[in-house]
Amino acid sequence: MGTIGIDLGGTTLSAGLVSQSGDITLRYTVDTDHSGADAIIEQICQLVRRIRGQSEQNTPTQVGIAIPGWVDSRRGRVVTCPNIPLQGVSLASEVSSALGCKVLLENDANCATLGEQKFGAAKDCQNLILLTLGTGLGGGAMVNGQLLSGVGSTEFGHILLVRGGLPCGCGRHGCREVYCSTTALLRMANEHSSQHHYRRAKELFAALAAGDAEAQAAFSEYLGYLADTIIDLITAFRPEKVLLGGGITGAGDALFLPLRAEVDKLCQGYIGGFDLPPILPAQNGNDAGILGAAALFF
Amino acid sequence: MGTIGIDLGGTTLSAGLVSQSGDITLRYTVDTDHSGADAIIEQICQLVRRIRGQSEQNTPTQVGIAIPGWVDSRRGRVVTCPNIPLQGVSLASEVSSALGCKVLLENDANCATLGEQKFGAAKDCQNLILLTLGTGLGGGAMVNGQLLSGVGSTEFGHILLVRGGLPCGCGRHGCREVYCSTTALLRMANEHSSQHHYRRAKELFAALAAGDAEAQAAFSEYLGYLADTIIDLITAFRPEKVLLGGGITGAGDALFLPLRAEVDKLCQGYIGGFDLPPILPAQNGNDAGILGAAALFF
Repeated sequence: MGTIGIDLGGTTLSAGLVSQSGDITLRYTVDTDHSGADAIIEQICQLVRRIRGQSEQNTPTQVGIAIPGWVDSRRGRVVTCPNIPLQGVSLASEVSSALGCKVLLENDANCATLGEQKFGAAKDCQNLILLTLGTGLGGGAMVNGQLLSGVGSTEFGHILLVRGGLPCGCGRHGCREVYCSTTALLRMANEHSSQHHYRRAKELFAALAAGDAEAQAAFSEYLGYLADTIIDLITAFRPEKVLLGGGITGAGDALFLPLRAEVDKLCQGYIGGFDLPPILPAQNGNDAGILGAAALFF
Repeated sequence: MGTIGIDLGGTTLSAGLVSQSGDITLRYTVDTDHSGADAIIEQICQLVRRIRGQSEQNTPTQVGIAIPGWVDSRRGRVVTCPNIPLQGVSLASEVSSALGCKVLLENDANCATLGEQKFGAAKDCQNLILLTLGTGLGGGAMVNGQLLSGVGSTEFGHILLVRGGLPCGCGRHGCREVYCSTTALLRMANEHSSQHHYRRAKELFAALAAGDAEAQAAFSEYLGYLADTIIDLITAFRPEKVLLGGGITGAGDALFLPLRAEVDKLCQGYIGGFDLPPILPAQNGNDAGILGAAALFF
Protein backbone atom coordinates (compact mmCIF):
# COMPACT_ATOMS: atom_id res chain seq x y z
CA MET A 1 0.00 0.00 0.00
CA GLY A 2 1.39 3.41 -0.89
CA THR A 3 1.90 5.88 1.93
CA ILE A 4 1.79 9.57 1.05
CA GLY A 5 3.02 12.29 3.38
CA ILE A 6 1.63 15.82 2.98
CA ASP A 7 3.54 18.81 4.33
CA LEU A 8 0.97 21.62 4.50
CA GLY A 9 2.99 24.80 4.89
CA GLY A 10 1.87 28.39 4.91
CA THR A 11 3.73 28.99 1.63
CA THR A 12 4.00 25.62 -0.09
CA LEU A 13 2.08 22.38 -0.02
CA SER A 14 4.21 19.30 -0.70
CA ALA A 15 3.28 15.68 -1.12
CA GLY A 16 5.62 12.72 -1.31
CA LEU A 17 5.34 8.97 -1.74
CA VAL A 18 7.30 7.46 1.11
CA SER A 19 8.81 3.97 1.15
CA GLN A 20 9.05 1.71 4.20
CA SER A 21 12.68 2.73 4.58
CA GLY A 22 11.89 6.45 4.50
CA ASP A 23 12.84 7.26 0.90
CA ILE A 24 10.69 9.81 -0.90
CA THR A 25 10.24 8.21 -4.32
CA LEU A 26 7.89 10.78 -5.85
CA ARG A 27 7.30 14.38 -4.83
CA TYR A 28 5.10 17.27 -5.96
CA THR A 29 4.89 20.81 -4.59
CA VAL A 30 2.44 23.67 -5.22
CA ASP A 31 1.91 27.10 -3.69
CA THR A 32 -0.61 26.87 -0.85
CA ASP A 33 -4.01 28.27 -1.89
CA HIS A 34 -5.27 30.56 0.87
CA SER A 35 -8.72 31.17 -0.59
CA GLY A 36 -10.47 28.65 1.66
CA ALA A 37 -10.65 25.16 3.08
CA ASP A 38 -12.26 23.69 -0.05
CA ALA A 39 -9.38 24.94 -2.18
CA ILE A 40 -6.80 23.37 0.11
CA ILE A 41 -8.67 20.07 0.23
CA GLU A 42 -8.78 20.11 -3.58
CA GLN A 43 -5.04 20.84 -3.76
CA ILE A 44 -4.27 17.93 -1.43
CA CYS A 45 -6.47 15.58 -3.46
CA GLN A 46 -4.89 16.67 -6.76
CA LEU A 47 -1.37 16.01 -5.45
CA VAL A 48 -2.38 12.58 -4.15
CA ARG A 49 -4.01 11.74 -7.50
CA ARG A 50 -0.87 12.83 -9.37
CA ILE A 51 1.25 10.54 -7.20
CA ARG A 52 -1.24 7.71 -7.60
CA GLY A 53 -1.15 8.21 -11.35
CA GLN A 54 2.65 7.98 -11.40
CA SER A 55 2.95 5.18 -8.89
CA GLU A 56 2.77 1.48 -9.57
CA GLN A 57 0.92 1.05 -6.30
CA ASN A 58 -1.92 3.27 -7.45
CA THR A 59 -4.75 2.30 -5.03
CA PRO A 60 -5.59 2.18 -2.23
CA THR A 61 -3.40 4.78 -0.58
CA GLN A 62 -3.00 6.07 2.96
CA VAL A 63 -2.35 9.77 3.50
CA GLY A 64 -0.78 11.53 6.47
CA ILE A 65 -0.99 15.32 6.74
CA ALA A 66 1.32 17.56 8.80
CA ILE A 67 -0.51 20.71 9.95
CA PRO A 68 1.20 23.91 11.20
CA GLY A 69 -1.30 24.39 14.00
CA TRP A 70 -3.24 22.69 16.75
CA VAL A 71 -4.87 19.46 15.73
CA ASP A 72 -7.30 17.09 17.40
CA SER A 73 -5.62 14.09 15.88
CA ARG A 74 -8.10 11.56 17.25
CA ARG A 75 -10.98 13.24 15.44
CA GLY A 76 -8.86 14.31 12.46
CA ARG A 77 -9.89 17.92 13.00
CA VAL A 78 -7.88 21.13 12.73
CA VAL A 79 -8.58 23.21 15.85
CA THR A 80 -6.62 26.38 15.07
CA CYS A 81 -4.24 27.02 12.22
CA PRO A 82 -2.80 30.53 11.97
CA ASN A 83 -2.34 31.67 8.36
CA ILE A 84 -4.22 28.79 6.73
CA PRO A 85 -8.05 28.86 6.57
CA LEU A 86 -8.66 25.45 8.15
CA GLN A 87 -9.90 26.36 11.63
CA GLY A 88 -12.49 23.86 12.81
CA VAL A 89 -12.31 21.80 9.59
CA SER A 90 -12.61 18.01 9.84
CA LEU A 91 -9.82 17.69 7.32
CA ALA A 92 -9.21 13.95 7.70
CA SER A 93 -12.77 12.94 6.90
CA GLU A 94 -13.07 15.51 4.08
CA VAL A 95 -9.92 14.27 2.34
CA SER A 96 -10.78 10.65 3.13
CA SER A 97 -14.22 10.98 1.54
CA ALA A 98 -12.81 12.65 -1.55
CA LEU A 99 -10.04 10.10 -2.08
CA GLY A 100 -11.52 6.93 -0.61
CA CYS A 101 -8.55 6.20 1.59
CA LYS A 102 -7.43 6.44 5.20
CA VAL A 103 -6.22 9.90 6.29
CA LEU A 104 -4.46 10.92 9.53
CA LEU A 105 -3.64 14.45 10.73
CA GLU A 106 -1.04 15.59 13.20
CA ASN A 107 0.69 18.81 14.20
CA ASP A 108 3.81 19.39 12.09
CA ALA A 109 6.30 19.45 14.98
CA ASN A 110 4.79 16.21 16.25
CA CYS A 111 5.14 14.73 12.77
CA ALA A 112 8.78 15.82 12.65
CA THR A 113 9.39 14.15 16.01
CA LEU A 114 7.81 10.91 14.84
CA GLY A 115 9.74 11.09 11.57
CA GLU A 116 13.05 11.35 13.40
CA GLN A 117 12.17 8.29 15.44
CA LYS A 118 11.12 6.25 12.41
CA PHE A 119 13.63 7.41 9.80
CA GLY A 120 16.05 9.90 11.35
CA ALA A 121 18.38 10.67 14.22
CA ALA A 122 16.43 8.89 16.96
CA LYS A 123 15.71 5.46 15.54
CA ASP A 124 14.34 3.16 18.23
CA CYS A 125 14.31 5.85 20.95
CA GLN A 126 11.29 5.47 23.21
CA ASN A 127 11.71 8.88 24.91
CA LEU A 128 12.66 11.77 22.70
CA ILE A 129 12.48 15.57 22.52
CA LEU A 130 12.65 17.54 19.27
CA LEU A 131 12.96 21.33 19.20
CA THR A 132 12.72 23.22 15.92
CA LEU A 133 14.49 26.56 15.90
CA GLY A 134 13.03 28.83 13.27
CA THR A 135 10.77 31.86 13.02
CA GLY A 136 9.19 30.40 16.13
CA LEU A 137 10.09 27.60 18.50
CA GLY A 138 8.33 24.33 17.78
CA GLY A 139 8.71 21.01 19.45
CA GLY A 140 7.45 17.54 20.05
CA ALA A 141 7.96 14.73 22.52
CA MET A 142 7.74 10.97 22.45
CA VAL A 143 7.07 9.36 25.82
CA ASN A 144 7.35 5.60 26.30
CA GLY A 145 7.30 5.15 22.52
CA GLN A 146 4.18 7.22 21.96
CA LEU A 147 3.83 10.72 20.61
CA LEU A 148 2.70 13.24 23.22
CA SER A 149 -0.52 14.18 21.49
CA GLY A 150 -3.75 14.50 23.32
CA VAL A 151 -6.33 17.06 22.30
CA GLY A 152 -3.97 19.59 20.86
CA SER A 153 -0.24 19.40 20.57
CA THR A 154 2.39 20.29 23.09
CA GLU A 155 3.75 23.82 22.68
CA PHE A 156 7.18 24.06 24.27
CA GLY A 157 7.65 27.50 22.70
CA HIS A 158 4.97 28.93 24.96
CA ILE A 159 6.25 27.75 28.33
CA LEU A 160 7.54 30.76 30.28
CA LEU A 161 11.30 31.34 30.43
CA VAL A 162 11.52 35.01 31.45
CA ARG A 163 8.53 35.89 33.59
CA GLY A 164 7.28 39.36 32.67
CA GLY A 165 9.67 39.35 29.72
CA LEU A 166 9.17 40.29 26.08
CA PRO A 167 5.68 40.01 24.59
CA CYS A 168 4.92 36.87 22.61
CA GLY A 169 2.50 36.46 19.71
CA CYS A 170 0.45 34.13 21.90
CA GLY A 171 -0.56 36.96 24.24
CA ARG A 172 1.69 36.07 27.19
CA HIS A 173 5.07 37.63 27.99
CA GLY A 174 8.43 35.88 28.29
CA CYS A 175 7.67 32.67 26.38
CA ARG A 176 10.62 30.54 25.31
CA GLU A 177 9.80 31.27 21.68
CA VAL A 178 10.88 34.91 22.07
CA TYR A 179 14.26 33.85 23.53
CA CYS A 180 15.17 30.58 21.77
CA SER A 181 13.91 30.88 18.17
CA THR A 182 16.21 31.89 15.31
CA THR A 183 14.23 35.15 15.22
CA ALA A 184 15.32 35.71 18.83
CA LEU A 185 18.97 35.02 18.01
CA LEU A 186 18.89 37.58 15.19
CA ARG A 187 17.21 40.12 17.46
CA MET A 188 19.93 39.66 20.08
CA ALA A 189 22.64 39.90 17.41
CA ASN A 190 21.20 43.15 16.08
CA GLU A 191 20.84 44.57 19.59
CA HIS A 192 24.52 43.85 20.26
CA SER A 193 25.85 44.92 16.88
CA SER A 194 27.03 48.46 16.21
CA GLN A 195 27.71 47.79 12.51
CA HIS A 196 25.75 44.89 11.12
CA HIS A 197 22.11 44.26 10.52
CA TYR A 198 21.76 40.49 10.52
CA ARG A 199 18.90 39.04 8.52
CA ARG A 200 19.97 35.41 8.45
CA ALA A 201 21.62 33.14 10.96
CA LYS A 202 24.40 32.25 8.55
CA GLU A 203 25.52 35.89 8.44
CA LEU A 204 25.86 35.74 12.20
CA PHE A 205 27.80 32.48 12.10
CA ALA A 206 30.16 34.04 9.55
CA ALA A 207 30.77 36.93 11.97
CA LEU A 208 31.37 34.44 14.79
CA ALA A 209 33.89 32.55 12.66
CA ALA A 210 35.62 35.88 11.94
CA GLY A 211 35.96 36.51 15.68
CA ASP A 212 33.44 39.37 15.94
CA ALA A 213 33.16 40.12 19.69
CA GLU A 214 29.69 41.66 19.47
CA ALA A 215 28.40 38.63 17.57
CA GLN A 216 29.96 36.41 20.23
CA ALA A 217 28.25 38.35 23.02
CA ALA A 218 24.86 37.96 21.35
CA PHE A 219 25.45 34.29 20.62
CA SER A 220 26.50 33.62 24.23
CA GLU A 221 23.33 35.28 25.48
CA TYR A 222 21.23 33.15 23.13
CA LEU A 223 23.04 29.95 24.14
CA GLY A 224 22.16 30.63 27.78
CA TYR A 225 18.45 30.81 26.98
CA LEU A 226 18.52 27.79 24.71
CA ALA A 227 20.58 25.71 27.16
CA ASP A 228 18.18 26.53 30.01
CA THR A 229 15.26 25.41 27.85
CA ILE A 230 17.00 22.16 26.92
CA ILE A 231 17.81 21.46 30.59
CA ASP A 232 14.18 22.18 31.53
CA LEU A 233 12.89 19.76 28.90
CA ILE A 234 15.35 17.10 30.10
CA THR A 235 14.09 17.76 33.64
CA ALA A 236 10.47 17.38 32.58
CA PHE A 237 10.73 14.50 30.13
CA ARG A 238 13.98 12.56 30.79
CA PRO A 239 14.49 11.87 27.07
CA GLU A 240 17.10 9.51 25.67
CA LYS A 241 17.97 12.11 23.03
CA VAL A 242 17.34 15.81 22.41
CA LEU A 243 17.19 16.70 18.71
CA LEU A 244 17.34 20.19 17.26
CA GLY A 245 15.92 21.02 13.84
CA GLY A 246 15.57 24.15 11.72
CA GLY A 247 17.89 25.88 9.28
CA ILE A 248 20.19 27.20 12.02
CA THR A 249 21.30 23.65 12.83
CA GLY A 250 23.11 23.68 9.48
CA ALA A 251 25.81 25.62 11.37
CA GLY A 252 26.83 22.23 12.79
CA ASP A 253 29.62 22.21 15.35
CA ALA A 254 29.61 26.02 15.48
CA LEU A 255 26.22 25.70 17.18
CA PHE A 256 26.33 22.29 18.83
CA LEU A 257 29.76 22.36 20.51
CA PRO A 258 29.24 25.61 22.48
CA LEU A 259 25.61 24.68 23.16
CA ARG A 260 26.58 21.34 24.71
CA ALA A 261 29.26 23.10 26.77
CA GLU A 262 26.68 25.63 28.01
CA VAL A 263 24.21 22.88 28.94
CA ASP A 264 26.97 21.06 30.88
CA LYS A 265 27.92 24.29 32.65
CA LEU A 266 24.37 25.35 33.60
CA CYS A 267 23.47 21.89 34.86
CA GLN A 268 26.04 22.17 37.63
CA GLY A 269 25.56 18.51 38.38
CA TYR A 270 21.85 19.02 38.88
CA ILE A 271 20.88 16.14 36.63
CA GLY A 272 22.27 14.08 39.49
CA GLY A 273 22.68 10.37 38.96
CA PHE A 274 21.71 10.62 35.31
CA ASP A 275 23.88 11.17 32.29
CA LEU A 276 22.81 14.10 30.14
CA PRO A 277 21.24 12.79 26.95
CA PRO A 278 23.02 13.59 23.69
CA ILE A 279 21.98 16.83 21.94
CA LEU A 280 22.03 16.16 18.21
CA PRO A 281 20.87 17.67 14.92
CA ALA A 282 17.66 16.29 13.47
CA GLN A 283 18.34 14.50 10.19
CA ASN A 284 15.21 14.83 8.09
CA GLY A 285 15.68 18.53 7.30
CA ASN A 286 13.27 19.90 4.70
CA ASP A 287 11.71 16.45 4.34
CA ALA A 288 10.63 16.41 8.00
CA GLY A 289 7.00 17.23 7.15
CA ILE A 290 6.53 14.65 4.40
CA LEU A 291 8.42 11.89 6.23
CA GLY A 292 6.78 12.65 9.56
CA ALA A 293 3.27 12.74 8.09
CA ALA A 294 3.87 9.40 6.37
CA ALA A 295 5.33 8.03 9.61
CA LEU A 296 1.89 8.32 11.19
CA PHE A 297 1.23 5.00 9.40
CA PHE A 298 4.54 3.27 10.13
CA MET B 1 -3.33 -12.12 45.23
CA GLY B 2 -2.68 -9.47 47.88
CA THR B 3 -1.26 -6.17 46.77
CA ILE B 4 0.76 -4.19 49.30
CA GLY B 5 1.69 -0.55 48.83
CA ILE B 6 4.72 0.82 50.69
CA ASP B 7 5.08 4.55 51.32
CA LEU B 8 8.76 5.07 52.11
CA GLY B 9 8.98 8.53 53.66
CA GLY B 10 11.92 10.29 55.23
CA THR B 11 10.20 10.14 58.63
CA THR B 12 7.81 7.20 58.50
CA LEU B 13 7.54 3.99 56.54
CA SER B 14 3.97 2.81 55.96
CA ALA B 15 2.62 -0.34 54.39
CA GLY B 16 -0.97 -1.09 53.49
CA LEU B 17 -2.91 -3.97 51.98
CA VAL B 18 -4.89 -2.47 49.11
CA SER B 19 -8.04 -3.93 47.61
CA GLN B 20 -9.01 -3.82 43.94
CA SER B 21 -11.32 -0.92 44.71
CA GLY B 22 -8.60 1.08 46.47
CA ASP B 23 -9.53 0.41 50.08
CA ILE B 24 -6.65 0.00 52.54
CA THR B 25 -7.76 -2.97 54.60
CA LEU B 26 -4.65 -3.32 56.80
CA ARG B 27 -1.99 -0.77 57.60
CA TYR B 28 1.23 -0.63 59.63
CA THR B 29 3.61 2.28 60.15
CA VAL B 30 7.09 2.51 61.68
CA ASP B 31 9.72 5.25 61.96
CA THR B 32 12.10 5.06 59.01
CA ASP B 33 15.46 3.57 60.03
CA HIS B 34 18.22 5.75 58.58
CA SER B 35 21.12 3.50 59.59
CA GLY B 36 21.52 1.95 56.13
CA ALA B 37 19.94 0.21 53.16
CA ASP B 38 19.88 -3.22 54.86
CA ALA B 39 17.91 -1.82 57.79
CA ILE B 40 15.31 -0.29 55.47
CA ILE B 41 15.00 -3.48 53.46
CA GLU B 42 14.46 -5.39 56.72
CA GLN B 43 11.82 -2.86 57.83
CA ILE B 44 9.95 -3.25 54.55
CA CYS B 45 10.07 -7.04 54.77
CA GLN B 46 8.85 -7.02 58.38
CA LEU B 47 5.85 -4.85 57.52
CA VAL B 48 4.97 -7.08 54.57
CA ARG B 49 5.25 -10.19 56.75
CA ARG B 50 2.99 -8.61 59.39
CA ILE B 51 0.35 -7.89 56.77
CA ARG B 52 0.72 -11.36 55.32
CA GLY B 53 0.30 -12.83 58.79
CA GLN B 54 -2.92 -10.86 59.32
CA SER B 55 -4.31 -11.36 55.86
CA GLU B 56 -6.34 -14.27 54.55
CA GLN B 57 -4.50 -13.99 51.24
CA ASN B 58 -1.15 -14.66 52.85
CA THR B 59 1.01 -15.72 49.85
CA PRO B 60 2.10 -14.88 47.27
CA THR B 61 2.02 -11.12 47.51
CA GLN B 62 3.00 -8.28 45.19
CA VAL B 63 4.64 -5.19 46.64
CA GLY B 64 4.86 -1.68 45.19
CA ILE B 65 7.19 0.87 46.80
CA ALA B 66 6.91 4.67 46.50
CA ILE B 67 10.35 6.30 46.78
CA PRO B 68 10.98 10.01 47.54
CA GLY B 69 13.75 10.28 44.98
CA TRP B 70 14.82 9.39 41.46
CA VAL B 71 14.15 5.84 40.48
CA ASP B 72 15.08 3.70 37.49
CA SER B 73 11.76 1.90 37.60
CA ARG B 74 12.58 -0.52 34.79
CA ARG B 75 15.55 -1.90 36.68
CA GLY B 76 13.96 -1.46 40.12
CA ARG B 77 16.89 0.64 41.25
CA VAL B 78 17.03 3.80 43.38
CA VAL B 79 19.28 6.29 41.61
CA THR B 80 19.36 9.14 44.14
CA CYS B 81 17.30 9.50 47.29
CA PRO B 82 18.07 12.54 49.45
CA ASN B 83 17.75 11.79 53.20
CA ILE B 84 17.38 8.02 52.86
CA PRO B 85 20.49 5.83 52.41
CA LEU B 86 19.34 3.99 49.29
CA GLN B 87 21.42 5.61 46.55
CA GLY B 88 22.32 3.05 43.90
CA VAL B 89 20.49 0.22 45.67
CA SER B 90 18.63 -2.36 43.55
CA LEU B 91 15.79 -2.26 46.04
CA ALA B 92 13.26 -4.20 43.97
CA SER B 93 15.43 -7.28 43.58
CA GLU B 94 16.65 -7.11 47.20
CA VAL B 95 13.11 -7.03 48.60
CA SER B 96 11.90 -9.52 46.02
CA SER B 97 14.61 -12.02 46.99
CA ALA B 98 13.89 -11.63 50.66
CA LEU B 99 10.12 -12.04 50.32
CA GLY B 100 9.78 -14.26 47.28
CA CYS B 101 7.33 -11.98 45.53
CA LYS B 102 7.17 -9.45 42.73
CA VAL B 103 8.31 -5.91 43.68
CA LEU B 104 8.00 -2.67 41.69
CA LEU B 105 9.52 0.73 42.52
CA GLU B 106 8.45 4.17 41.40
CA ASN B 107 9.03 7.78 42.40
CA ASP B 108 6.47 8.90 45.00
CA ALA B 109 4.98 11.74 42.96
CA ASN B 110 4.59 9.36 40.03
CA CYS B 111 2.89 6.87 42.36
CA ALA B 112 0.54 9.58 43.59
CA THR B 113 -0.34 10.45 39.98
CA LEU B 114 -1.08 6.83 39.14
CA GLY B 115 -3.07 6.42 42.36
CA GLU B 116 -5.32 9.36 41.46
CA GLN B 117 -5.97 7.81 38.06
CA LYS B 118 -6.78 4.37 39.49
CA PHE B 119 -8.59 5.28 42.71
CA GLY B 120 -8.88 9.06 43.00
CA ALA B 121 -9.87 12.29 41.28
CA ALA B 122 -8.85 11.32 37.75
CA LYS B 123 -10.42 7.93 37.18
CA ASP B 124 -10.12 6.92 33.53
CA CYS B 125 -8.16 10.03 32.51
CA GLN B 126 -5.56 9.18 29.89
CA ASN B 127 -3.72 12.52 30.17
CA LEU B 128 -3.22 13.93 33.63
CA ILE B 129 -0.97 16.28 35.60
CA LEU B 130 -0.55 16.11 39.38
CA LEU B 131 1.31 18.79 41.33
CA THR B 132 2.02 18.32 45.03
CA LEU B 133 2.44 21.58 46.94
CA GLY B 134 4.49 21.01 50.08
CA THR B 135 7.96 21.65 51.39
CA GLY B 136 8.96 21.28 47.75
CA LEU B 137 7.04 21.08 44.49
CA GLY B 138 6.55 17.54 43.24
CA GLY B 139 4.64 16.31 40.28
CA GLY B 140 3.82 13.59 37.86
CA ALA B 141 2.22 13.18 34.46
CA MET B 142 0.29 10.52 32.65
CA VAL B 143 0.48 10.69 28.87
CA ASN B 144 -1.77 8.57 26.68
CA GLY B 145 -2.61 6.41 29.66
CA GLN B 146 0.99 5.76 30.68
CA LEU B 147 3.01 7.26 33.47
CA LEU B 148 5.76 9.59 32.27
CA SER B 149 8.61 7.58 33.69
CA GLY B 150 11.71 6.85 31.72
CA VAL B 151 15.08 6.60 33.38
CA GLY B 152 14.34 8.93 36.27
CA SER B 153 11.17 10.78 37.02
CA THR B 154 9.94 14.07 35.74
CA GLU B 155 10.75 17.01 38.05
CA PHE B 156 8.37 19.86 37.36
CA GLY B 157 9.65 21.67 40.43
CA HIS B 158 13.00 22.23 38.75
CA ILE B 159 11.85 23.79 35.50
CA LEU B 160 12.79 27.49 35.50
CA LEU B 161 10.10 30.05 36.26
CA VAL B 162 12.14 33.14 37.20
CA ARG B 163 15.42 33.07 35.29
CA GLY B 164 18.21 34.26 37.56
CA GLY B 165 15.79 34.19 40.50
CA LEU B 166 16.14 32.76 43.98
CA PRO B 167 18.57 29.89 44.57
CA CYS B 168 17.12 26.39 44.62
CA GLY B 169 18.39 23.38 46.51
CA CYS B 170 19.09 21.71 43.17
CA GLY B 171 21.88 24.19 42.37
CA ARG B 172 20.02 26.27 39.77
CA HIS B 173 18.28 29.60 40.40
CA GLY B 174 14.62 30.46 39.85
CA CYS B 175 13.13 26.94 39.80
CA ARG B 176 9.37 26.66 40.15
CA GLU B 177 9.85 24.91 43.50
CA VAL B 178 11.07 28.16 45.11
CA TYR B 179 7.98 30.05 43.89
CA CYS B 180 5.13 27.50 43.95
CA SER B 181 5.72 25.26 47.00
CA THR B 182 3.96 25.84 50.31
CA THR B 183 7.36 26.87 51.66
CA ALA B 184 7.39 29.61 49.00
CA LEU B 185 3.90 30.79 49.97
CA LEU B 186 4.93 31.09 53.62
CA ARG B 187 8.11 32.98 52.62
CA MET B 188 6.05 35.46 50.60
CA ALA B 189 3.56 35.84 53.43
CA ASN B 190 6.33 36.56 55.93
CA GLU B 191 7.98 39.02 53.54
CA HIS B 192 4.70 40.93 53.20
CA SER B 193 3.66 40.76 56.83
CA SER B 194 4.57 43.46 59.31
CA GLN B 195 3.03 41.62 62.29
CA HIS B 196 2.78 37.89 61.76
CA HIS B 197 5.29 35.13 61.37
CA TYR B 198 3.47 32.41 59.50
CA ARG B 199 4.66 28.85 60.05
CA ARG B 200 1.73 26.98 58.53
CA ALA B 201 -0.46 27.60 55.52
CA LYS B 202 -3.62 27.39 57.61
CA GLU B 203 -2.50 30.42 59.66
CA LEU B 204 -2.25 32.34 56.42
CA PHE B 205 -5.68 31.17 55.23
CA ALA B 206 -7.12 32.30 58.55
CA ALA B 207 -5.59 35.75 57.97
CA LEU B 208 -7.02 35.79 54.43
CA ALA B 209 -10.47 34.90 55.75
CA ALA B 210 -10.15 37.77 58.27
CA GLY B 211 -9.46 40.19 55.41
CA ASP B 212 -5.78 40.85 56.17
CA ALA B 213 -4.52 42.99 53.26
CA GLU B 214 -0.87 41.97 53.64
CA ALA B 215 -1.80 38.29 53.59
CA GLN B 216 -3.89 38.96 50.49
CA ALA B 217 -0.96 40.66 48.74
CA ALA B 218 1.30 37.67 49.44
CA PHE B 219 -1.36 35.20 48.39
CA SER B 220 -1.98 37.09 45.13
CA GLU B 221 1.73 37.03 44.37
CA TYR B 222 1.84 33.30 45.01
CA LEU B 223 -1.24 32.65 42.90
CA GLY B 224 0.44 34.37 39.95
CA TYR B 225 3.42 32.02 40.12
CA LEU B 226 1.31 28.92 40.60
CA ALA B 227 -1.13 29.87 37.84
CA ASP B 228 1.75 30.46 35.41
CA THR B 229 3.13 27.03 36.24
CA ILE B 230 -0.23 25.37 35.73
CA ILE B 231 -0.69 27.14 32.39
CA ASP B 232 2.81 26.04 31.33
CA LEU B 233 2.07 22.42 32.21
CA ILE B 234 -1.21 22.59 30.30
CA THR B 235 0.74 24.05 27.37
CA ALA B 236 3.31 21.25 27.51
CA PHE B 237 1.08 18.28 28.26
CA ARG B 238 -2.54 19.12 27.29
CA PRO B 239 -3.92 17.13 30.23
CA GLU B 240 -7.61 16.34 30.69
CA LYS B 241 -7.29 17.28 34.36
CA VAL B 242 -4.81 19.12 36.59
CA LEU B 243 -4.80 17.82 40.18
CA LEU B 244 -3.21 19.54 43.15
CA GLY B 245 -2.15 17.65 46.24
CA GLY B 246 -0.47 18.52 49.52
CA GLY B 247 -1.78 19.81 52.85
CA ILE B 248 -2.48 23.30 51.50
CA THR B 249 -5.24 21.94 49.26
CA GLY B 250 -7.22 21.36 52.44
CA ALA B 251 -8.01 25.09 52.19
CA GLY B 252 -10.51 24.08 49.50
CA ASP B 253 -12.37 26.88 47.73
CA ALA B 254 -10.20 29.50 49.47
CA LEU B 255 -7.36 28.19 47.31
CA PHE B 256 -9.07 26.76 44.24
CA LEU B 257 -11.54 29.55 43.39
CA PRO B 258 -8.98 32.40 43.19
CA LEU B 259 -6.45 30.05 41.57
CA ARG B 260 -8.84 29.12 38.77
CA ALA B 261 -9.69 32.81 38.29
CA GLU B 262 -5.98 33.65 38.05
CA VAL B 263 -5.36 30.88 35.51
CA ASP B 264 -8.28 32.15 33.41
CA LYS B 265 -6.96 35.71 33.60
CA LEU B 266 -3.34 34.89 32.74
CA CYS B 267 -4.33 32.67 29.84
CA GLN B 268 -5.77 35.65 28.00
CA GLY B 269 -7.34 33.32 25.49
CA TYR B 270 -3.96 31.81 24.70
CA ILE B 271 -5.16 28.25 25.10
CA GLY B 272 -7.00 29.04 21.89
CA GLY B 273 -9.52 26.55 20.61
CA PHE B 274 -9.16 24.39 23.70
CA ASP B 275 -11.10 24.47 26.91
CA LEU B 276 -8.95 24.78 30.00
CA PRO B 277 -8.92 21.47 31.85
CA PRO B 278 -10.44 21.42 35.33
CA ILE B 279 -8.08 22.17 38.23
CA LEU B 280 -9.11 19.94 41.13
CA PRO B 281 -7.88 18.70 44.49
CA ALA B 282 -6.27 15.27 44.55
CA GLN B 283 -8.38 12.85 46.60
CA ASN B 284 -5.99 10.30 48.07
CA GLY B 285 -4.43 12.66 50.60
CA ASN B 286 -2.14 10.94 53.10
CA ASP B 287 -2.88 7.58 51.47
CA ALA B 288 -1.41 8.73 48.15
CA GLY B 289 1.85 6.83 48.68
CA ILE B 290 0.33 3.48 49.70
CA LEU B 291 -2.45 3.61 47.10
CA GLY B 292 -0.13 4.83 44.36
CA ALA B 293 2.52 2.19 45.08
CA ALA B 294 -0.13 -0.54 45.02
CA ALA B 295 -1.55 0.95 41.82
CA LEU B 296 1.68 0.00 40.03
CA PHE B 297 0.06 -3.47 39.82
CA PHE B 298 -3.50 -2.40 38.90
